[in-house]
Amino acid sequence: MEFDPRNPDMARPGDGGLGQPIAISLDRVDEIATEVQRLVKAGRESTAWELIRYLHPADMGSVVASLPRGSREAMVRVMSPETVAWMLRQMNPVEAGRVGTRLGVKVLSLVFGQLHPAQALATLRRLPFLRPHKVAESLDRPLEDEGALAHGPDTAGSLMVAELPIVDAGALVQSARQNLGELAETRDKITHVYVLIGGELAGQVSMVDLALADDATPVRDVASPIVATVTTDTPAEECARLRRHYNVTQLPVVDGPRLTGVILADSLLGVTVEQDTRQMQQVANVAGETVDGPLAGSVRSRLPWLTVNLGTTFLAAAVVALFESTLTQVVVLAAFLPVVAGQGGIGGTQTLTLIVRAIALGELAGVEARRLLLREALLGLLHGVWLGVLVAAIAFAWKQNPGLSLVLGVAMLGNMVIAGSVGAAVPLLLRRMGLDPAVASAVVVTTATDVFGFLLFLGLATASIGLLT
Amino acid sequence: MEFDPRNPDMARPGDGGLGQPIAISLDRVDEIATEVQRLVKAGRESTAWELIRYLHPADMGSVVASLPRGSREAMVRVMSPETVAWMLRQMNPVEAGRVGTRLGVKVLSLVFGQLHPAQALATLRRLPFLRPHKVAESLDRPLEDEGALAHGPDTAGSLMVAELPIVDAGALVQSARQNLGELAETRDKITHVYVLIGGELAGQVSMVDLALADDATPVRDVASPIVATVTTDTPAEECARLRRHYNVTQLPVVDGPRLTGVILADSLLGVTVEQDTRQMQQVANVAGETVDGPLAGSVRSRLPWLTVNLGTTFLAAAVVALFESTLTQVVVLAAFLPVVAGQGGIGGTQTLTLIVRAIALGELAGVEARRLLLREALLGLLHGVWLGVLVAAIAFAWKQNPGLSLVLGVAMLGNMVIAGSVGAAVPLLLRRMGLDPAVASAVVVTTATDVFGFLLFLGLATASIGLLT
Repeated sequence: MEFDPRNPDMARPGDGGLGQPIAISLDRVDEIATEVQRLVKAGRESTAWELIRYLHPADMGSVVASLPRGSREAMVRVMSPETVAWMLRQMNPVEAGRVGTRLGVKVLSLVFGQLHPAQALATLRRLPFLRPHKVAESLDRPLEDEGALAHGPDTAGSLMVAELPIVDAGALVQSARQNLGELAETRDKITHVYVLIGGELAGQVSMVDLALADDATPVRDVASPIVATVTTDTPAEECARLRRHYNVTQLPVVDGPRLTGVILADSLLGVTVEQDTRQMQQVANVAGETVDGPLAGSVRSRLPWLTVNLGTTFLAAAVVALFESTLTQVVVLAAFLPVVAGQGGIGGTQTLTLIVRAIALGELAGVEARRLLLREALLGLLHGVWLGVLVAAIAFAWKQNPGLSLVLGVAMLGNMVIAGSVGAAVPLLLRRMGLDPAVASAVVVTTATDVFGFLLFLGLATASIGLLT
Repeated sequence: MEFDPRNPDMARPGDGGLGQPIAISLDRVDEIATEVQRLVKAGRESTAWELIRYLHPADMGSVVASLPRGSREAMVRVMSPETVAWMLRQMNPVEAGRVGTRLGVKVLSLVFGQLHPAQALATLRRLPFLRPHKVAESLDRPLEDEGALAHGPDTAGSLMVAELPIVDAGALVQSARQNLGELAETRDKITHVYVLIGGELAGQVSMVDLALADDATPVRDVASPIVATVTTDTPAEECARLRRHYNVTQLPVVDGPRLTGVILADSLLGVTVEQDTRQMQQVANVAGETVDGPLAGSVRSRLPWLTVNLGTTFLAAAVVALFESTLTQVVVLAAFLPVVAGQGGIGGTQTLTLIVRAIALGELAGVEARRLLLREALLGLLHGVWLGVLVAAIAFAWKQNPGLSLVLGVAMLGNMVIAGSVGAAVPLLLRRMGLDPAVASAVVVTTATDVFGFLLFLGLATASIGLLT
């Protein structure tokens, strides 16, 4: 490993890599970011660079990404393309993806266009969450072997690197060490060396076992079986599941019996984090946005769902309109519409969130759908009894109308049971249909609780109108 | 490492640990789970055990956890306490926590009560997500050094193991290897050995550097600086942030300059996953639940929020009641209440989800709160213009009342701006107050969009009542 004065992960000559921890507090990063913003605004990028050049690359990245959009290019020009590429490579790939996305394609093509093509390609392959294919396309001259970046964005192919840590089963541990030492881009990230027999993947040696073995030991004696393999088109989601379930750190990508790539630990982890983010966002239909991305992107992601939702709220409106004559007779019923709908919506969303997350974590293996449905309906009943009594009591205290209180209480009870059942049924059904339960569930569930809640409440009120007036 | 015939992670004698990957498909796990459930129901636990004893511990765990509550004890009795402890130890700690939680304290105390106390303690320390303290308390005889399990459940202390991979800076690499080889519980999980000078933590050596170094090299020459340290009372959340931001695999826990524990890679990761789960669940107020936990736990977690929410929906009801005379004159206004409230609620939740997640990922460093607020308010305006025009058009087509359409369109526009502003302001404010923005934001935001939406809509309608009738 060459010494790089800007790289605090590397041992510095003279001090043997020993000394104080490198991390700084979030507040300190905030302070430095503010100062750097001020300096860059005043056109003093070089002074700003002096402030951050000895920071950990992750902190350096946070500061650069915090600059206003117009100032980022000036800062990057002062830093040199090599330093920016190095910074991104050293970061957690998910954070590197975010920082790169904030820098924007224009600044990124400035950086990657000036790197040696091989280095540019290798760096882009270490940045799976940056849409490396888009960056490569934006360059003036094409990268060799750009096809390597062309895998679907959510597949194992887009996550893997092509530098392979391999050794033959018949070789000695000494060869395994030598092969490991010759890796250029990925050496520091490797957790397992793969063992081949006749060129085919047959096992692995962990770094710990390699560190402990004698040079003269046959590789075969320290090898252990491969736990799981994927192919280039395996969905990223499945890679994340394999990592989590089998507790593996690194995944081999194979084509038949041959090893074609490796998903390194930090990219594999990144998939988990990215999927958690996407899933949270999908429940609210804001998937793929960042807090300071372009407005047009946010409009594109949110407006379609808002429009769909408008359609569904009109369903609820139509139900209310059905009961116009009842409302004319007992206009105070209108005041309780948000109470019935609001509670149902919250109850349904609680169930829904729990089940969507359980599906994502693979917790439903061997658990019967019917049992889940019954459980949530029963919970809805329990909550409904309490909320029904409470809402009836409050309504009575407020309006002194026993008929109204009764109708409201019963409608609340019924809607909570509906909320629990629908909140469980919708994601389970979407999953059975092969759809992502996170995407559409929330809209369907809140529509159902609105529509059925109003039907129950206003229907009961109409049936017992004599009690209310 | 002793050979264990039940442990597929270990090399089997004779085949040198080579062969087919061990992973099986989710469908296959489901099939085996169903068959095992059938066998255990018929009292044939031993036959069931034969079906799963050669599975990967993670799959074994899934199958055992899928058994109905009453059958788990019988299965665990057949498996022997040592095997169950081994299974839990081999799993991803988060999944081990879930499987353990499903087994329940009674079954767990059966398992851990029969283990050698030292082994029980070491195993419990590897299972931070299982509330090891509770399990230890349930045992008939106390474990020695039970205090080691007494750290707060969300602190570094509860995540760390006490077995320390250390070497003196002045020693040779040979000693580092020897120390590593002597670790009993954690050897296979270690990614860095810590370097001490005069007993104080001064650096680290990665497994890769250790694997590559000559026996005769001084440790000092292959050491690199520590990136970050934590203390036993550092919140788990901060540990997760350090891992993510600095891309570290393992965290040293220190007391002053002395190393007191190590958070291993899989526990450190587990914190990230657990926090993502909790955060998703907190937005919907179902934190800490599992899909088939006891009903009482779910009621305890959800009912308080449902009750709080009932209070807030009455706020909305009170606003509607203010306008009873307007509603009496134009009763069809009631039908549009869910439209105004529903759209505002969805819009506010979109903004909220985006910001809560960005806070959790530490993406807001150096980003001004004012800029975020403005951005979301502006987005609300853009969405509001489109939705306002659309809702006015649909309402006109339905009711042919131009005044009603105008009032509805304007109220929609206004409520979307409010939704964006409140959706951004509430989590930012909660964060500034040192509270968790995931917990209460959703209730506050939907209350605000209901209340302000109704005020705007019914207020405008009252002001322009002449246009409507």
